[in-house]
Amino acid sequence: MPSSFDQEENLALDKMSNNIKKLSAFDLRGFLVLGSNGELVHLSDVEKIQVYEMGREAITQDKLMIAGTGGQSTRETIMLTKAAAKAGADAVLVLNPFYFKGLMKPEALKQHYFTVADASTVPVIVYNMPANSGMDMDADTILMISEHPNIIGMKDSGGNVAKMGAIRKRVKPEFQILAGSAGFLVPAMSVGACGGILASANIAPAQCIAMHKAFLAGDMSEASRLQLDIISVNNAVTKKWGVPALKEAMDYIGLYGGPARKPILPLDAASKTDLLKILNDYNIKS
Amino acid sequence: MPSSFDQEENLALDKMSNNIKKLSAFDLRGFLVLGSNGELVHLSDVEKIQVYEMGREAITQDKLMIAGTGGQSTRETIMLTKAAAKAGADAVLVLNPFYFKGLMKPEALKQHYFTVADASTVPVIVYNMPANSGMDMDADTILMISEHPNIIGMKDSGGNVAKMGAIRKRVKPEFQILAGSAGFLVPAMSVGACGGILASANIAPAQCIAMHKAFLAGDMSEASRLQLDIISVNNAVTKKWGVPALKEAMDYIGLYGGPARKPILPLDAASKTDLLKILNDYNIKS
Amino acid sequence: MPSSFDQEENLALDKMSNNIKKLSAFDLRGFLVLGSNGELVHLSDVEKIQVYEMGREAITQDKLMIAGTGGQSTRETIMLTKAAAKAGADAVLVLNPFYFKGLMKPEALKQHYFTVADASTVPVIVYNMPANSGMDMDADTILMISEHPNIIGMKDSGGNVAKMGAIRKRVKPEFQILAGSAGFLVPAMSVGACGGILASANIAPAQCIAMHKAFLAGDMSEASRLQLDIISVNNAVTKKWGVPALKEAMDYIGLYGGPARKPILPLDAASKTDLLKILNDYNIKS
Amino acid sequence: MPSSFDQEENLALDKMSNNIKKLSAFDLRGFLVLGSNGELVHLSDVEKIQVYEMGREAITQDKLMIAGTGGQSTRETIMLTKAAAKAGADAVLVLNPFYFKGLMKPEALKQHYFTVADASTVPVIVYNMPANSGMDMDADTILMISEHPNIIGMKDSGGNVAKMGAIRKRVKPEFQILAGSAGFLVPAMSVGACGGILASANIAPAQCIAMHKAFLAGDMSEASRLQLDIISVNNAVTKKWGVPALKEAMDYIGLYGGPARKPILPLDAASKTDLLKILNDYNIKS
Repeated sequence: MPSSFDQEENLALDKMSNNIKKLSAFDLRGFLVLGSNGELVHLSDVEKIQVYEMGREAITQDKLMIAGTGGQSTRETIMLTKAAAKAGADAVLVLNPFYFKGLMKPEALKQHYFTVADASTVPVIVYNMPANSGMDMDADTILMISEHPNIIGMKDSGGNVAKMGAIRKRVKPEFQILAGSAGFLVPAMSVGACGGILASANIAPAQCIAMHKAFLAGDMSEASRLQLDIISVNNAVTKKWGVPALKEAMDYIGLYGGPARKPILPLDAASKTDLLKILNDYNIKS
Repeated sequence: MPSSFDQEENLALDKMSNNIKKLSAFDLRGFLVLGSNGELVHLSDVEKIQVYEMGREAITQDKLMIAGTGGQSTRETIMLTKAAAKAGADAVLVLNPFYFKGLMKPEALKQHYFTVADASTVPVIVYNMPANSGMDMDADTILMISEHPNIIGMKDSGGNVAKMGAIRKRVKPEFQILAGSAGFLVPAMSVGACGGILASANIAPAQCIAMHKAFLAGDMSEASRLQLDIISVNNAVTKKWGVPALKEAMDYIGLYGGPARKPILPLDAASKTDLLKILNDYNIKS
Repeated sequence: MPSSFDQEENLALDKMSNNIKKLSAFDLRGFLVLGSNGELVHLSDVEKIQVYEMGREAITQDKLMIAGTGGQSTRETIMLTKAAAKAGADAVLVLNPFYFKGLMKPEALKQHYFTVADASTVPVIVYNMPANSGMDMDADTILMISEHPNIIGMKDSGGNVAKMGAIRKRVKPEFQILAGSAGFLVPAMSVGACGGILASANIAPAQCIAMHKAFLAGDMSEASRLQLDIISVNNAVTKKWGVPALKEAMDYIGLYGGPARKPILPLDAASKTDLLKILNDYNIKS
Repeated sequence: MPSSFDQEENLALDKMSNNIKKLSAFDLRGFLVLGSNGELVHLSDVEKIQVYEMGREAITQDKLMIAGTGGQSTRETIMLTKAAAKAGADAVLVLNPFYFKGLMKPEALKQHYFTVADASTVPVIVYNMPANSGMDMDADTILMISEHPNIIGMKDSGGNVAKMGAIRKRVKPEFQILAGSAGFLVPAMSVGACGGILASANIAPAQCIAMHKAFLAGDMSEASRLQLDIISVNNAVTKKWGVPALKEAMDYIGLYGGPARKPILPLDAASKTDLLKILNDYNIKS
């Protein structure tokens, strides 16, 4: 879920809540609030807690609420994790600290995640997001971290499927590997991912669900077909144009997109035209 | 196929020929001579041609011989391509020029590949190998290059399955995408690769074939299982320890491995012990 | 200036204030609070403002107080910039937003810096810190940004002196280029930097000042000698071991170092021994 | 020295010889044949030897001839080194092997350079060129390599002056550090480089010499001025447009430039116009 802002870039909790309610009509397993596309890094602590609370209010109990709570310091991460749990999150998604890249050796990361997991009353999901963090946690590091009983899975947005497979082979059976992008959901599932947390699910929920179900049903030709179909639109709203394109697409289909917070600029006119063409080609219509 | 050298690092064509003959007992589609693991960059032009000729002699006509012919200059690549074709190669695998990285814009790469493909009497396969070349050709560049009628496929060793899917979706139907590593064969096939050119096929040909067949048969759970099983041993003979580990493993199973050319050092004793353990765990026995 | 924490990782403003007072005995031009080594990213907004206020109280009026105020969003950066100015900062140091790396095109960065500079009552200094941010702003981007009248300089921690020279040649004359590390102060000055903001000045202020003065006096052989001497110790407290080593060294010489906030771990025993040897070799004694 | 080719891309030794003779009028210490801009990687072994022989014929005995001889294998490097020595080279410049990046650990690089230096009758200069090789040898590796008595210096094209300083501080006094680009000659000299091997010396020899002499004479303000002046033109013929721009500029000033070998494309018309403007701004006239 992107976080919603009004034209003055103030948090528009009601818009975000409406988005959740509309998307709840689909058979999604749950929602992530305050992931990368939720602009976690653009919100104040107070705002983050407001989003957690709004989230639980809007997300029905039969669906999971996962809350992004990763900060640069262990103490901030714990504070946010507790706040999310208190608000009713079912699990927290914790991006690794990355500002002091040179110091984030496996042991430092392990201690960070263990300390957070010890302090958390809800399960912890590790979040690896190299394109934004500038760091890529390797299989051995993830495996070390996975040994904590309260760490139940990972979202990997890097797309390195050989790494996912290496983790899957050696990790505890109940550890859940989640694809971090609809661009490689099927390949990730082919090496043992059980699902995904996908930006594209905001604009193509039915297609994401169909792709997931086709794989689970063993219908690989359908799964592959759906996978190939979604790559272009997924690329448009993630790697190519990112958050503003995702929000633009949400506006286009009748959800609330609105602006991202600056310094993220809105799409320029030419990119917007290209985006709409990509959406239409994929049969996403306003 | 690794290239075989004796203890003085001279080309040992008979050893390489024997390896081919032994591996021909397996239902492999063909052989690649002078890929990265064939130490293409370590051979003189004369030696390269000797390998092409030995290759065709050893490889029976019912199996394909693919020859690595990519050099830094277009003219060298054409010279090697013609020599490989003359020796009887069925296709050539052309790694992109990469030394002048900053100048290798899409247009330069396209002209290079088009010129080579024009000059070649056999089909050309594009080879993308970022870990060694330090460059990663993107989907748009590959798509431009794929428009030449004599360019029939690509080997991608980068493992970016979203990119493979993006290419698959838009490329001509007959274009063959080949996984460049056994570490992601199944995920690559799940986005439209038709097979792979795999270092691990030298030491685990039966397992590679089984994995490929399981996928083609639609038995995803078996394909996934085989995929997860092979990742560790594949990693050992590629990313982790590379050519000397692959050769060590070949020696271990009764093929000829021998030394790599310097500056590549043999495995140290501790790594060798670790490697043998990984092989044994995977049920590769001497 | 590192930020000071007690053993429970709570802000220890008195310790930091004492450090400033002791270091004020040296002929330093001023102090930076809440740069990278000030663990800006580890502090809450409230804590940041406390540090700004403590800083101005401790830093005498004849010395400059520069305050780090760069956040990921433009609005947070403006909020912190205003708070720092209100607290009495002479200038603010603004690290570029970097989480959404793919979106931080020159135009987005320019608008960010221009908006901040418009809103700021004190001058703005651009901060480029690729090792932590994972982004390296190029000369053209810096030149675009430098056109704002309230943007008066840059701190460059990347060490690319050809880039500094390219900027120096084309930028407005009053624009101040500041070396971001004592590891390349003299080379930076040789291409037009006027000084530096240096972590090593916390533990070797006299040597940093001597190096600066030697260059200004035209005594290149002395400047070069001092430059070569400091590289090893500077490397130890920055790139090699970072903040915990800097704090360890401060403890060693009678300033307050204390712990960094987690996930940054304290130096292990072996590294500490190595560090002390490097300090002693450089004639830094307890 | 770029290598000269005629319009069919055949080696034009007479053109290259003429270039050397014309440039010999300047007080350059010597010439490098078959460096990166000499398109070493684009020449066959036979052609390389032809260039070495032409070089020694054209370069008078009072000037040094340095020959690039670095190949991917140790044996090829030794073969070329012996050929260059036999042709009369005063020293060889050996780029590190880099294709098998993952295997080029410090020990492998050390053994490579030691074996080459043992086999060479002329002194060996280490060449670090990260932009092309995709690898950056660090200070510790260079220091290990520098211990061989026949290894007398390094050319560093990476521009990391803190690293150069770290090497200078700890290396044997007679080891010569040479700037690999005119973009940072003066900063490199400020940390102990004794000179440079500079592409820009082909088109601005007088300015390069003046910059070098100004530094040696202790006239830092003149050295800095010349350094800032040359950065733009140097950038144009190296990082920005590379070999074809350097050759275009040589044609422009009355030397022979000619084409680079494909896949390097000639400059397009717009870039050529930009280049000529940059040359003119720097007072390089036809």
